[in-house]
Amino acid sequence: MRVLITGVDGYLGWTLAIHLAARGHEVAGIDNYARRAWVGQMGSQSAIPIAAMAERLSAFRRRLGCNLRFYRGDLTDFHFVLNAYRSFRPEAVVYLGEMPSAPFSMVDVHNAVFTQTNNIVGTLITLHVLRDEAPECHLVKLGTMGEYGTPDLDIPEGWFDLEFRGRKDRMLFPRRAGSWYHQSKVHDSHNVEMACRLWGLRSTDIMQGVVYGTRIPEMSGEPELATRFDFDQAFGTAINRFCAQAVIGLPLTPYGKGHQKRGFLPLRDSMQCLTLALEHPPRAGEYRVFNQFEDVYDVSELAARVQRVAAELGLDVKIHPMENPRAEAEQHYYHPDHQHLVDLGYRPSSDMDAELREMLRDLLPHRDRIEERKEAQFPDIRWDGTRRRSEYLSR
Amino acid sequence: MRVLITGVDGYLGWTLAIHLAARGHEVAGIDNYARRAWVGQMGSQSAIPIAAMAERLSAFRRRLGCNLRFYRGDLTDFHFVLNAYRSFRPEAVVYLGEMPSAPFSMVDVHNAVFTQTNNIVGTLITLHVLRDEAPECHLVKLGTMGEYGTPDLDIPEGWFDLEFRGRKDRMLFPRRAGSWYHQSKVHDSHNVEMACRLWGLRSTDIMQGVVYGTRIPEMSGEPELATRFDFDQAFGTAINRFCAQAVIGLPLTPYGKGHQKRGFLPLRDSMQCLTLALEHPPRAGEYRVFNQFEDVYDVSELAARVQRVAAELGLDVKIHPMENPRAEAEQHYYHPDHQHLVDLGYRPSSDMDAELREMLRDLLPHRDRIEERKEAQFPDIRWDGTRRRSEYLSR
Repeated sequence: MRVLITGVDGYLGWTLAIHLAARGHEVAGIDNYARRAWVGQMGSQSAIPIAAMAERLSAFRRRLGCNLRFYRGDLTDFHFVLNAYRSFRPEAVVYLGEMPSAPFSMVDVHNAVFTQTNNIVGTLITLHVLRDEAPECHLVKLGTMGEYGTPDLDIPEGWFDLEFRGRKDRMLFPRRAGSWYHQSKVHDSHNVEMACRLWGLRSTDIMQGVVYGTRIPEMSGEPELATRFDFDQAFGTAINRFCAQAVIGLPLTPYGKGHQKRGFLPLRDSMQCLTLALEHPPRAGEYRVFNQFEDVYDVSELAARVQRVAAELGLDVKIHPMENPRAEAEQHYYHPDHQHLVDLGYRPSSDMDAELREMLRDLLPHRDRIEERKEAQFPDIRWDGTRRRSEYLSR
Repeated sequence: MRVLITGVDGYLGWTLAIHLAARGHEVAGIDNYARRAWVGQMGSQSAIPIAAMAERLSAFRRRLGCNLRFYRGDLTDFHFVLNAYRSFRPEAVVYLGEMPSAPFSMVDVHNAVFTQTNNIVGTLITLHVLRDEAPECHLVKLGTMGEYGTPDLDIPEGWFDLEFRGRKDRMLFPRRAGSWYHQSKVHDSHNVEMACRLWGLRSTDIMQGVVYGTRIPEMSGEPELATRFDFDQAFGTAINRFCAQAVIGLPLTPYGKGHQKRGFLPLRDSMQCLTLALEHPPRAGEYRVFNQFEDVYDVSELAARVQRVAAELGLDVKIHPMENPRAEAEQHYYHPDHQHLVDLGYRPSSDMDAELREMLRDLLPHRDRIEERKEAQFPDIRWDGTRRRSEYLSR
């Protein structure tokens, strides 16, 4: 299948390009290297060194025996996107080309505006290009579990039968996002659903949980094939920050009470799930939603796990909660469905401890790079618009 | 109360400025004259001539004995907006400054992108300026009943108690909009709700029905105080197009089956409702939603009414349905709540026939202006992205 990956220079995009090519798909990618720049703006860098695109492409060819067609440009540039589609004629597109950080979007009005326009405009342009150039093409759009927020309810997969005053209709489950970034994904979801309904496009909207991991087997042995690993306050997830903290001996810092619950899945399972979605496309006009994660953990549990696995590797780390810079529920009900991918054949590939062990082992050789930018992992972007570094909480 | 009106040069904005000043409020307005330009792009003009802003402001002063403070600029320009707030220090803002046409947003990718960025960015900037400069200020945000679409369900006012698998939470009612414009309002609603939740702002989000009418009593006798009346395919509502068709002897053209149902309210009632919202602000942190309309009519009923009232004025008009350029349900359940404003004291002011009579009387002296641009009322903007003029349907 000809698959176009937007955001192919990113954490998931680069990994997916390798995974799909190894499965025999023909892969093209779009990127403007924005992620590298944003992480730089946060005073950080990928802990694991990543090669320049030219080197990535050579290593890709060497390892996988085929070319990755790369289009450098901006997804908010209509003519660029149109030409990429005309040139590659994708049968599926995996849309990973968005600004993916909640804290980055909360910095100030400019970042809020940038986040929403960048993400929404890119998607709007893609929908129009699909309509006019590739109406059969399957759009796999990356959303986030964060679109739903943490209502005091079970969370179905996108759609549900709403019964209200004795009548019933199939509706989108209400969203309650907690940052301008998460809202941008809510807006995308509404836009994509409408394009399927009005124009007969087909899309899978992935409400993805937090992905963790440093590699997939197809990358091994080629440093130029490595994917990025961020640990700064904006682009590093809690689990990434914990692992980075562990390897340089800083205490692990859950925010606030630490009972925020989220769905998680390993990088290789994210690849498995995206591949299942691609290889089982929806019918024309269908907008389907997958909640994509393996297990729900609370953040303190996660810190305890990282601590335990780190201890096995001889790393003695403490856990020290930190003031929460975000406005979010720190203790809440969380019970989202995640059956659709299991029905398509998803089988979790490995246990979390094994994955954490691999992450820590992959990070240990790069502790200097983390040490060098360790300031970047201390949160100071607050949800009220101020910048003030969070303090450790006394226990 | 100091009230800032964004989009003060528009149909509702200009009328509201006069209405609020007559009630003794201090009024300021923002506009960049975009509506005049958009209607021009559609090959049309206001049927009722409207004065240039300088003349409007003089007439305002003459009639109302006070100044309207006018800031000319773009709501997507952060520093301009910030300075306007610092200069006027509003206690309430009525946000009417958006691109309000569904067909205009469906023309092509550029209009879709413009509509969503213009509307969303303006609102995002306003939310940030409110947070930092005027956190007590009440944001009255104009949404549209079209955010809900036409689900096969009753429609509550924004919020409802969602019962799902034995649990219950207060949630936003799911939206199902039918154009990029309507989606932009859905996105705004999500963004505004989040700002109230996270930042303690207060907002009334008005899901307004279709407003019709040519004047309010406070305008009478001053042609420079007149508000605009659009009849083109993009900025003219069905009811406006029917009235314009009636005065130049064209058949009235419901689209398709003509059983689309919508909520309607006269211009003076829209003013009454907005004033009630302003004079009864929500508490800090509250995001409340009003469904603002008086009655539900189906479009064919409406055409029949215009025909009947026109006959009373000696105008003999036919009804001739036309191919529907939109993708929308032409026959559907429609039962939205509209109790909140009634609870605040809203009393419908006049019957529809009286209002239609006044509209036709106001339009008759300007039949030449409608005749001159009559081509603009024939729809050719199709929901599938093509431009092809709709045919009359054979009956």
